[in-house]
Amino acid sequence: MIDNYLALLPNLAVVQDTVAATTKDVEDAVSAINGDLGMLWMLLSGILVFFMQAGFTLVETGMTRSKNAANIAMKNLLDICVGSLTYWLVGYSLMYGDTSNGWFFWSGLMQGEGADLFFQTMFAATAATIVSGAIAGRTKYSTYVIFSVVMTALIYPIAGGWQWQGSGWLTELGFIDFAGSSIVHSVGGWAALVAAFMVGPRIGKYVDGKVNPIPGHNQILATLGVFILWLGWFGFNGGSQLAWGGADAIGASNVVLITNLAAAAGGLGALVTTWIWYGKPNLPQTLNGALAGLVSITAGCGNMSAIGAVFAGLIGGIIVVFSIEFIEKKLKIDDAIGAASVHGVAGAWGTLVIGLWGIDGETGIGLFNGGGFSQLGSQAIGVVAYAVWSIVLSFIILKVLKSTMGLRVTKEEEELGLDLSEHGEIAYPGKRDRG
Amino acid sequence: MIDNYLALLPNLAVVQDTVAATTKDVEDAVSAINGDLGMLWMLLSGILVFFMQAGFTLVETGMTRSKNAANIAMKNLLDICVGSLTYWLVGYSLMYGDTSNGWFFWSGLMQGEGADLFFQTMFAATAATIVSGAIAGRTKYSTYVIFSVVMTALIYPIAGGWQWQGSGWLTELGFIDFAGSSIVHSVGGWAALVAAFMVGPRIGKYVDGKVNPIPGHNQILATLGVFILWLGWFGFNGGSQLAWGGADAIGASNVVLITNLAAAAGGLGALVTTWIWYGKPNLPQTLNGALAGLVSITAGCGNMSAIGAVFAGLIGGIIVVFSIEFIEKKLKIDDAIGAASVHGVAGAWGTLVIGLWGIDGETGIGLFNGGGFSQLGSQAIGVVAYAVWSIVLSFIILKVLKSTMGLRVTKEEEELGLDLSEHGEIAYPGKRDRG
Amino acid sequence: MIDNYLALLPNLAVVQDTVAATTKDVEDAVSAINGDLGMLWMLLSGILVFFMQAGFTLVETGMTRSKNAANIAMKNLLDICVGSLTYWLVGYSLMYGDTSNGWFFWSGLMQGEGADLFFQTMFAATAATIVSGAIAGRTKYSTYVIFSVVMTALIYPIAGGWQWQGSGWLTELGFIDFAGSSIVHSVGGWAALVAAFMVGPRIGKYVDGKVNPIPGHNQILATLGVFILWLGWFGFNGGSQLAWGGADAIGASNVVLITNLAAAAGGLGALVTTWIWYGKPNLPQTLNGALAGLVSITAGCGNMSAIGAVFAGLIGGIIVVFSIEFIEKKLKIDDAIGAASVHGVAGAWGTLVIGLWGIDGETGIGLFNGGGFSQLGSQAIGVVAYAVWSIVLSFIILKVLKSTMGLRVTKEEEELGLDLSEHGEIAYPGKRDRG
Repeated sequence: MIDNYLALLPNLAVVQDTVAATTKDVEDAVSAINGDLGMLWMLLSGILVFFMQAGFTLVETGMTRSKNAANIAMKNLLDICVGSLTYWLVGYSLMYGDTSNGWFFWSGLMQGEGADLFFQTMFAATAATIVSGAIAGRTKYSTYVIFSVVMTALIYPIAGGWQWQGSGWLTELGFIDFAGSSIVHSVGGWAALVAAFMVGPRIGKYVDGKVNPIPGHNQILATLGVFILWLGWFGFNGGSQLAWGGADAIGASNVVLITNLAAAAGGLGALVTTWIWYGKPNLPQTLNGALAGLVSITAGCGNMSAIGAVFAGLIGGIIVVFSIEFIEKKLKIDDAIGAASVHGVAGAWGTLVIGLWGIDGETGIGLFNGGGFSQLGSQAIGVVAYAVWSIVLSFIILKVLKSTMGLRVTKEEEELGLDLSEHGEIAYPGKRDRG
Repeated sequence: MIDNYLALLPNLAVVQDTVAATTKDVEDAVSAINGDLGMLWMLLSGILVFFMQAGFTLVETGMTRSKNAANIAMKNLLDICVGSLTYWLVGYSLMYGDTSNGWFFWSGLMQGEGADLFFQTMFAATAATIVSGAIAGRTKYSTYVIFSVVMTALIYPIAGGWQWQGSGWLTELGFIDFAGSSIVHSVGGWAALVAAFMVGPRIGKYVDGKVNPIPGHNQILATLGVFILWLGWFGFNGGSQLAWGGADAIGASNVVLITNLAAAAGGLGALVTTWIWYGKPNLPQTLNGALAGLVSITAGCGNMSAIGAVFAGLIGGIIVVFSIEFIEKKLKIDDAIGAASVHGVAGAWGTLVIGLWGIDGETGIGLFNGGGFSQLGSQAIGVVAYAVWSIVLSFIILKVLKSTMGLRVTKEEEELGLDLSEHGEIAYPGKRDRG
Repeated sequence: MIDNYLALLPNLAVVQDTVAATTKDVEDAVSAINGDLGMLWMLLSGILVFFMQAGFTLVETGMTRSKNAANIAMKNLLDICVGSLTYWLVGYSLMYGDTSNGWFFWSGLMQGEGADLFFQTMFAATAATIVSGAIAGRTKYSTYVIFSVVMTALIYPIAGGWQWQGSGWLTELGFIDFAGSSIVHSVGGWAALVAAFMVGPRIGKYVDGKVNPIPGHNQILATLGVFILWLGWFGFNGGSQLAWGGADAIGASNVVLITNLAAAAGGLGALVTTWIWYGKPNLPQTLNGALAGLVSITAGCGNMSAIGAVFAGLIGGIIVVFSIEFIEKKLKIDDAIGAASVHGVAGAWGTLVIGLWGIDGETGIGLFNGGGFSQLGSQAIGVVAYAVWSIVLSFIILKVLKSTMGLRVTKEEEELGLDLSEHGEIAYPGKRDRG
């Protein structure tokens, strides 16, 4: 009898160990599955962000003249081709300070960074492509190639590292930019402004002090482009949660929800503004308003109530109408599609608004009354830092390019259209047959 | 020795508790992960349904004249902007009877309803946007704004609540409408029919008893639009499973599979019908046929075998050709893109077919021979209820709008095109240069 | 006291059983969730691949003349409609040798094969649709219908079974074709070449020994089409992992990453090649280069380092420029959009490159120095086998069709355009009004 009881002792220890192992197994399994879920969400988000390149192409071609359409397509194709390669080769390592990974990606088996690198690559390509529309119709293609390389390999990754590397100086300062109102959009937008200024206006834009509109050739393509960008933005903002599972699933869902609300409010804001101001609701400005709404919530989509997002987007959509008019008519800078306003100005607004009515993503407490150095102050510093960085770097690079390769095609080439002069083919060949 | 045995007693109890806790942990973890999976699927589905707005824009612009293209883009943009805001503010609470959530979404932290609200919002916007195409080319934009607000804030949510709120009167009756053949598409389609009737035909459509075709200006955009709608419909129907995991994963996969089969059969049905009837296979009707196939399986995609889905779609694709001709030539109602046929008539058919060869989603048993009050009877009641609701409400609102703001632009404005008269800009400005 | 100890014995056994059951539960739960994750990934991938049909439509219409645009849309719609139905009815069973499933899908409840059948269906439709562009502008629609049926029901499924059925003769040989460079793209590409040869060149293509370019009518639609194809390819290649979870999640993520790198390198390769050769960077060739980059990594995306993928794509993008010129000017076969080069030639290259610098997906060891019969040998046999199969089958079927229904429209119909002659409507009706 006693032997039976004795036999129990080791058994129980085994059972205890098994139970502990099982508990550990459950935790490991949940953790592994959450990791897999997060990877799935980031990969799908990256795929959505990739599609934004098509959106940019359509917005930019639709909002400019048909004789430069193929050139814009070629610039956007270049951005994704060059951006994918340079960011993989140089940018990612530079941004995240992880040089081993940089070389790691070169050769041999890849072990699990694929979804993240893919997702981040698409952000770099986005930052570059914002510039291409602003300088449409007069810029040398060869010069643009160099600029696109520098943008994706250098300007964007270094700026991005200040915050997203995890322990950059802006992170230390408490700066918040969830998905990149400043880091991606403002950096691209201010570069676009500098580039549009340096390249100079298109022939016929400013004549004898008069500002002439140069309407785009296809507003339906531009509309489709905006829908595609809006779609891709769900991945841009939602994927920036960088995880899925538990609180992250709820978080990312809400990011997508309020991203949509801000876009809707931005579109409506511009629509109503133009209805009042111009007398009729205006399509191109409504499109810009929706995009501005999206840019305006990109920084704060993890730190905003639904109503806060609506007002962030609404004001962004209103601001953009005035900003486009101001840059075009007062500053007399010929930003062909309003990229500086949509991405730069609305990006700055979207970054600042977090300091006004942003909330803590976990507690829901407003950020405005932060003790000590205020959130608004941190946001303002970030806005200024990214503006200065982008403006100075772009200026230097474009200055160098101007005095070496030159920025601009000849007057004859510009009048002929860049499609023929730069690429030897027009975008709509059949038109000649029917003409 | 005895002490050792005594010591075992509490230990074993602890182990038993730990095991019980671990078992509970596993159940909780599986349940949490299934919840996260469901949220992911609904969010992704909502993103796909959002993209349908781009599809509607392209189908509607492509199938109407170029002088009204920007106006249609503005109506579709309005639908998603207004729809997103009103459904969030009012519609969702009204539909699901959950007023606390309505206000909850206003402010503060959001805790997990994001994916569902986002998904449902896109359905409301879809219901509204169906109307815009039917009344293309002659309707006042300001009037359309009001109608769009009423549709997404009132007409659709109340109708939706009858079934999808969970304990509505149609649910009690055993009515089946998985993803909204009636609730979304018929409600939109009948409203489109009433609106087309109330606004009256476009100038030149019916002259001296003769019916003149007014072909759309870009069948390739329309084709792209149909592909985008087809794509989005996988989210529309598949996401209506509202979950992913276990039986739901299989269920949603099969929903997507048979949605594709029905669309294919619908497209082929219309293609062959026009080949026989018109002598040549007709592109616009094939496009309508594919859409009708999709509408025809929307109600029954959770209650249909694959072969059943093929025949539901096939017949839907055939019906739509005849319905479009009937409404255009017999009823003499100028539905510019056939929206009433594609969404209203095919929606009714898709709802009824469940009563003919639908099956129980769990047992696979046919629903036709249901005891007592038959399934076909329930389906017919639902069809009639949604038709009456949509027709009566639309009629009243449009009647009021007609006698106050007016529904229609002037003859001069219509002939000039709504792009210029309502928005001050045309969709394809370059065309004038080349003209 | 003794009783208490005695009571422990059965208790401990119960606890042990419970622990064992819990461990089993965890394993089952993890396995079930991984299954659900895999189903989600395959379904989403299938949805992305579906969208490629829209991409093909745009590339093919954009790269050919406007008078045949509706005809191309009708061919692409036919491919997805017919392909979805025939592959479900016949092709899937034929390919996977699972005849029970074939009939199983006919009726009754479907129990879990939905995601797989859906995914595979989209591959069959892709194989068929590759042909439609090559023979644009002169082929009878009725003949194309028959060819499309045979392609999706017979030619592709039998060829696919050699490898993807799991124990086909090419699988036994060690042949690697992860996502179908040969199985889908080469089979489609060689069929396109044979069809273009059999149908003969378009009127005006070759006159008095001179090769005349026939430029497409809308390069922006073509560009959008390439972006959509590139997007869909993430599902095409990534989904071919057939699972998600653990190593599969990492594997599929890396597949998507290197697919993007190869596409980028392919686009850049063609861009630079034309810049050097033609003197200006050429848009249509850059588009073909990106597609060739995608085709070049389709076979090896599970067996390639990142740097290996870049070179596979880069060389694919360069080859395609020369191949298009060679087929057009030396072979004098009028492949209207370069489908044989993009899908056939790059497909063969993408299959062979695995034997050159492919790596084992698990160990990372290079495949070139495989003992015994080399990997390169296996790859070459697969390339030849698919080429012979596709060329011979296509030739026989087209020969039969030629001598019965005829392959080609009349000279008058061709000059009028297939839109009017085959479908009774043009794609851009408004053009006449403005003309």
